[in-house]
Amino acid sequence: MSEPLFNKIALVGIGLIGSSLARVIRERNLAGTIAIASRSAETLSRARELALGDVYADSSAEAVREADLVIVSVPVGASGQVARDIADSLKPGAIVSDVGSTKKSVIEQMQPALPQSAHFIPGHPVAGTEHSGPDSGFSTLFDGRWCILTPLPGTDADALAALIGFWRACGSMVDRMDPDHHDLVLAIVSHLPQIIAYNIVGTADDLETVTKSEVIKYSASGFRDFTRLAASDPTMWRDVCLNNKDAILEMLSRFSEDLSSLQRAIRWGDGDKLFDLFSRTRQIRRSIIEAGQDVDAPNFGRHAAAEGQEGAE
Amino acid sequence: MSEPLFNKIALVGIGLIGSSLARVIRERNLAGTIAIASRSAETLSRARELALGDVYADSSAEAVREADLVIVSVPVGASGQVARDIADSLKPGAIVSDVGSTKKSVIEQMQPALPQSAHFIPGHPVAGTEHSGPDSGFSTLFDGRWCILTPLPGTDADALAALIGFWRACGSMVDRMDPDHHDLVLAIVSHLPQIIAYNIVGTADDLETVTKSEVIKYSASGFRDFTRLAASDPTMWRDVCLNNKDAILEMLSRFSEDLSSLQRAIRWGDGDKLFDLFSRTRQIRRSIIEAGQDVDAPNFGRHAAAEGQEGAE
Repeated sequence: MSEPLFNKIALVGIGLIGSSLARVIRERNLAGTIAIASRSAETLSRARELALGDVYADSSAEAVREADLVIVSVPVGASGQVARDIADSLKPGAIVSDVGSTKKSVIEQMQPALPQSAHFIPGHPVAGTEHSGPDSGFSTLFDGRWCILTPLPGTDADALAALIGFWRACGSMVDRMDPDHHDLVLAIVSHLPQIIAYNIVGTADDLETVTKSEVIKYSASGFRDFTRLAASDPTMWRDVCLNNKDAILEMLSRFSEDLSSLQRAIRWGDGDKLFDLFSRTRQIRRSIIEAGQDVDAPNFGRHAAAEGQEGAE
Repeated sequence: MSEPLFNKIALVGIGLIGSSLARVIRERNLAGTIAIASRSAETLSRARELALGDVYADSSAEAVREADLVIVSVPVGASGQVARDIADSLKPGAIVSDVGSTKKSVIEQMQPALPQSAHFIPGHPVAGTEHSGPDSGFSTLFDGRWCILTPLPGTDADALAALIGFWRACGSMVDRMDPDHHDLVLAIVSHLPQIIAYNIVGTADDLETVTKSEVIKYSASGFRDFTRLAASDPTMWRDVCLNNKDAILEMLSRFSEDLSSLQRAIRWGDGDKLFDLFSRTRQIRRSIIEAGQDVDAPNFGRHAAAEGQEGAE
């Protein structure tokens, strides 16, 4: 077996992303030792039962000692606290990265707390599912997905190359981006869809005229698609909303403007306008499938997934 | 082989729904003869190549002659014209039904044109995919899905029982509903999600600050879910918007109200409010899965669907 990429990798946080990393690191031999830290005793004990790492610690300071690479996978609002917790225990030359869905706020929280002797390189693997916790991870989560790194000016080239190598070994394709631009891009491709999904599910839940049981029974006509995103981890998403406020508010206001215009077209029976919008959106779907970022199978291939699963398509 | 349920079934319109019906009727021996009509010569010729029926006609009047059951599967805006076209050719006692996603407008369009001697029973199978045309149908589309019938006062009991038997034989569970209530329910579970999906994809397409290529590359973070619905047939959805205006406008205005309130919580950093909403929406997903209306597999089971499909999860 070839040498692992790193002697020791510390994973701070072991939810969907952290536990997927643990699995792919193990499977592809990317670390001599995997150290796992979680603030939650229950989560840590579950990680141990799943044998996700080699050593387990309830303190992140303990876990990061002697680590060459530290990946922080916690809700973005907790990033600053983790940075303060680990600062004094980091080995000189250690690479510290994260997986948060907002980058400007994570940098503002973590950078001031971390020592100069460590290489802090913010990152964001654009991958996930609606499930959370250490049981939900899987080793192929990052395969064919993008990981965006937002290195700060003056970042050590070797450290950056090592982190890029790590993500590639995890199956990702790697992009570099300015943190501000990252936050704007993610606001439209991730945060806005997520907020809209939560909102529409909330609207349906509140109706007095249509029962919850009706919403559930007939959800296959479209609604169910939104419930997947709306089943995501509430803490993670609360933190994203609080930590990418400006970009999210900008996208929300564009969305609402467009929706008002669409609403007006419906009210006044402007069929041509509706047809035009409904036609041009088809092309984007096609491009996403061609780029390998979704499957072509109808209904996301639910049919195949449910073979043998009674009652579902 | 047992006797078919009907001597002759005529399918007017042979897109996703019509061609799925043709396939399940054939597979489960529900008709002695399947007659297919389409206004489009290309579609009709494709239906013939796929051997979806026994006889083919470019006129719906021709197709419905001697039929015991006629199912009209056309965009809802075209229902009135079909009713006028077939009225004089219907056999006395024939059952005429449809599959449209709006019921009040279809009734208003079709009922005045149809003869008293025919049994008109509006219907709506709540099933579909984002694909369209005769190639996209499949015989299991209706399995485990609901079909809603909205019979008018005074509907013949035997005709209703026969139509219920037909949909059950197609794999559906059957519900009865008042047409007004149907239109309200569908506005929230189907029409609003569809409009929101079109809108968000349009908003993303219009951005100057984020490129289309970025939207596509990072779409796995949530956006791609919406592109599935937004790839649906534009004519069908234009007609739905124009034919269920009141209920859709009602749902849109509730949605926008809720979104404004959510936007305000984001602007003012009200984390508790965000957390509360993001938590309660999880339960609906759970109920939908328990009701067999979606799969539990993460990411809709795309992973399973894409086994061997390069580049996709």
